[in-house]
Amino acid sequence: MSEDVKVVLSDREIPRQWYNIQADLPTPVPPPLHPATKKPCGPDDLAPIFPMNIIEQEVSTQRWIDIPEPILEKLLIWRPSPLCRARAFEKALGTPAKIYYKNEGVSPAGSHKPNTAVAQAYYNKVFGIKRLTTETGAGQWGSALAMACKLFDLELKVYMVRISFEQKPYRKLMMQAWGAQCVPSPSQDTQVGRKLAAAFPGTPGSLGMAISEAVEDAVTSKDTRYSLGSVLNHVCLHQTIIGLEAKKQFEKIGGYPDVVLACVGGGSNFSGIAFPFVCDRIHGRKIRIVACEPTACPSLTKGPYRYDFGDTGMMTPLLAMHSLGHDFVPAAVHAGGLRYHGMAPLVSRCLEDKLIEAQSFQQLDCYAAAVLWARTEGFIPAPETSHALAAAVAEAKRAKEEGKERTILISWSGHGLLDLTGYDAYLSGKLTNYELPDAEIRRSLEKIKDMPKP
Amino acid sequence: MSEDVKVVLSDREIPRQWYNIQADLPTPVPPPLHPATKKPCGPDDLAPIFPMNIIEQEVSTQRWIDIPEPILEKLLIWRPSPLCRARAFEKALGTPAKIYYKNEGVSPAGSHKPNTAVAQAYYNKVFGIKRLTTETGAGQWGSALAMACKLFDLELKVYMVRISFEQKPYRKLMMQAWGAQCVPSPSQDTQVGRKLAAAFPGTPGSLGMAISEAVEDAVTSKDTRYSLGSVLNHVCLHQTIIGLEAKKQFEKIGGYPDVVLACVGGGSNFSGIAFPFVCDRIHGRKIRIVACEPTACPSLTKGPYRYDFGDTGMMTPLLAMHSLGHDFVPAAVHAGGLRYHGMAPLVSRCLEDKLIEAQSFQQLDCYAAAVLWARTEGFIPAPETSHALAAAVAEAKRAKEEGKERTILISWSGHGLLDLTGYDAYLSGKLTNYELPDAEIRRSLEKIKDMPKP
Repeated sequence: MSEDVKVVLSDREIPRQWYNIQADLPTPVPPPLHPATKKPCGPDDLAPIFPMNIIEQEVSTQRWIDIPEPILEKLLIWRPSPLCRARAFEKALGTPAKIYYKNEGVSPAGSHKPNTAVAQAYYNKVFGIKRLTTETGAGQWGSALAMACKLFDLELKVYMVRISFEQKPYRKLMMQAWGAQCVPSPSQDTQVGRKLAAAFPGTPGSLGMAISEAVEDAVTSKDTRYSLGSVLNHVCLHQTIIGLEAKKQFEKIGGYPDVVLACVGGGSNFSGIAFPFVCDRIHGRKIRIVACEPTACPSLTKGPYRYDFGDTGMMTPLLAMHSLGHDFVPAAVHAGGLRYHGMAPLVSRCLEDKLIEAQSFQQLDCYAAAVLWARTEGFIPAPETSHALAAAVAEAKRAKEEGKERTILISWSGHGLLDLTGYDAYLSGKLTNYELPDAEIRRSLEKIKDMPKP
Repeated sequence: MSEDVKVVLSDREIPRQWYNIQADLPTPVPPPLHPATKKPCGPDDLAPIFPMNIIEQEVSTQRWIDIPEPILEKLLIWRPSPLCRARAFEKALGTPAKIYYKNEGVSPAGSHKPNTAVAQAYYNKVFGIKRLTTETGAGQWGSALAMACKLFDLELKVYMVRISFEQKPYRKLMMQAWGAQCVPSPSQDTQVGRKLAAAFPGTPGSLGMAISEAVEDAVTSKDTRYSLGSVLNHVCLHQTIIGLEAKKQFEKIGGYPDVVLACVGGGSNFSGIAFPFVCDRIHGRKIRIVACEPTACPSLTKGPYRYDFGDTGMMTPLLAMHSLGHDFVPAAVHAGGLRYHGMAPLVSRCLEDKLIEAQSFQQLDCYAAAVLWARTEGFIPAPETSHALAAAVAEAKRAKEEGKERTILISWSGHGLLDLTGYDAYLSGKLTNYELPDAEIRRSLEKIKDMPKP
């Protein structure tokens, strides 16, 4: 063999600090605003929702933050994850590009989500919290947190977006195997859930609605806090271990990516692989970093940068972010994890400062790329991941047309073994493309036109 | 961290030869007999079923067999697999034993099966075969071969045991994602299938029946051969990469197992981890090696060592093996991959020569061990794998009672993400134990009482 297929790191090479991009951003992220007063939130405003140790992390501007030993110990169950060269995929595309992927599908839950789930469960545990609540879209996050809560002996209730709950029955079983409770959202278990179910009969649900339910449950229950799988600064922070490992792995083989591709929903997977490379770009290194979103939910490519609620029920603080409007309900595309109206403030800020790019991809192109991947590289990608693969296909084709070598790095954010109904629908010709009509975007944005500008 | 959680090998450390235990067995395995003449089969008798390059491997007594580069290239997609220490599981059991597991769940199909699937697809491809047929129980094998066939551009039809086909709908979708055709067996697509369906209306099916269908399809179709995922010598050979890697990994940390535990159905997973250690035992090293089977299908612990058919339709050569009788239909326990009436002749021979031990385990103990594993180590085990975990629990408890350290090595043969309905049944109290009644065994064995003794 001329070159290795995989670059692996030993346990001892695992990064022992997270990278906090807040230390390096040219423009700081604007603070969250209190939903009622519209004034900047202090730590005390967030205290009913999150434990104070996580709130401190959320606002920290320290560049490197130590990863506590008990978190490292759990991450080592599957990390460092391999960096792999996708030679068969390259060959099928006939491209001169070198395509590397960081395989986050090797975690017990099958995605990158446990990186922050383990951290959040730990911080809640040491703060004395007994029970967590959360929402989940495709179920990647809910199952990751279910595992993490069990590892640190916490109770968990998951509000799962109804359409995904129905499309992905195994996700619920997975959460149950790890001892968590999982209900479809909107549910009848919360005030806001009952209100939303009555207001939108037959709604497929949305991450925005499920967040409202989980937050209400957390602030009204004893010893309970809420845990979010994406969007917030501390979540992006925990995920940077992906990019930090990838950089070490490229150092080992003396390479460096020309372009980094990752799917983006709330922003956790994207920021995880991207931020350590954005840091290099801020410091002058030439690299392109592309956030890949679905045309059905184009928050970065079509949503304005504005303060907006993180949830549909208008319970969360206002965040400065690219948003399609807090009551936007995305079409039921199979990439459930990308169906979110907003975007991580840190990712939004990076886009404003042109440190990253954003592109949107059609569902059929994504599945075509995913099937080609499965049939050349073996691993079956999650529907979310397929957005980065569609981007890789486009980059690889451009490299071919230009006859130029280039190194592409993909965040292979998770496997699709529990999302096979989407493949079935695609292979039997039942899926279609969906581009969000401009009129619908305008209608949704009308609701947030008076929101403060960051 | 005092000690690593995982021992990883780089791509360059992957074993480049398989270990052939036939070179070292104190008593050679008796040859397969022709089903009609009951005389030893020659290579030509097997030629309609298998390509000649695989037949040569089947009868080889060469100790080390080179792994061709194109096979290595595909194995490197996920191999070498990590050797991990199950510290949280140990802690939950309060045992002084050190428990290591070889994680074969990291393959794209989620089990050890691709180790031989990739090899068999390659050998058929270079022999000029265009299409393969096979059977599958739980679906681990069918999906592994589906992936391998696609990687080497072969067509595949999979006959899946009906009960598993119904219990595990995602398995079919997985095979389809990799481009294979999958039908429930007994099917209406073969003569023997129609005959079996008529003779046993409503039958849950069995591996023995599905094999008959796949073999008939292979010998009656153009450019088609049959592929078996277990039992045969070449399959056991291809799997030895598991144990060979594990030995390298133990060398790295200066350890060696006192006992090796692996679940056993047809014998492929067991022989894969066990044979390189059996080799050490033959050469005088002290080590116990235990094959773990379900009480519902106790071929090693209750089946005699006899010549028997590999299939229910009596189409295959006779193999010298521990068998419950070729028309034995096991109860519908969830560990579909262990529902086979016979046992690999090499494994059977090892048991006869007391090189290995065999123990049977009840379903509820297996699921209890599996749930404890998922909730401490994160990864959700396949129901098959849970038999080795139940054995580990028993070994760990014994170590605790005796107050003795010992090193346990488990073949963690696959994850259970596509087998979650079994967990659901267990957690909701719907599963029961099942011990095969002696009367039923006697009835079944009656049919093979006149079979030649090896």
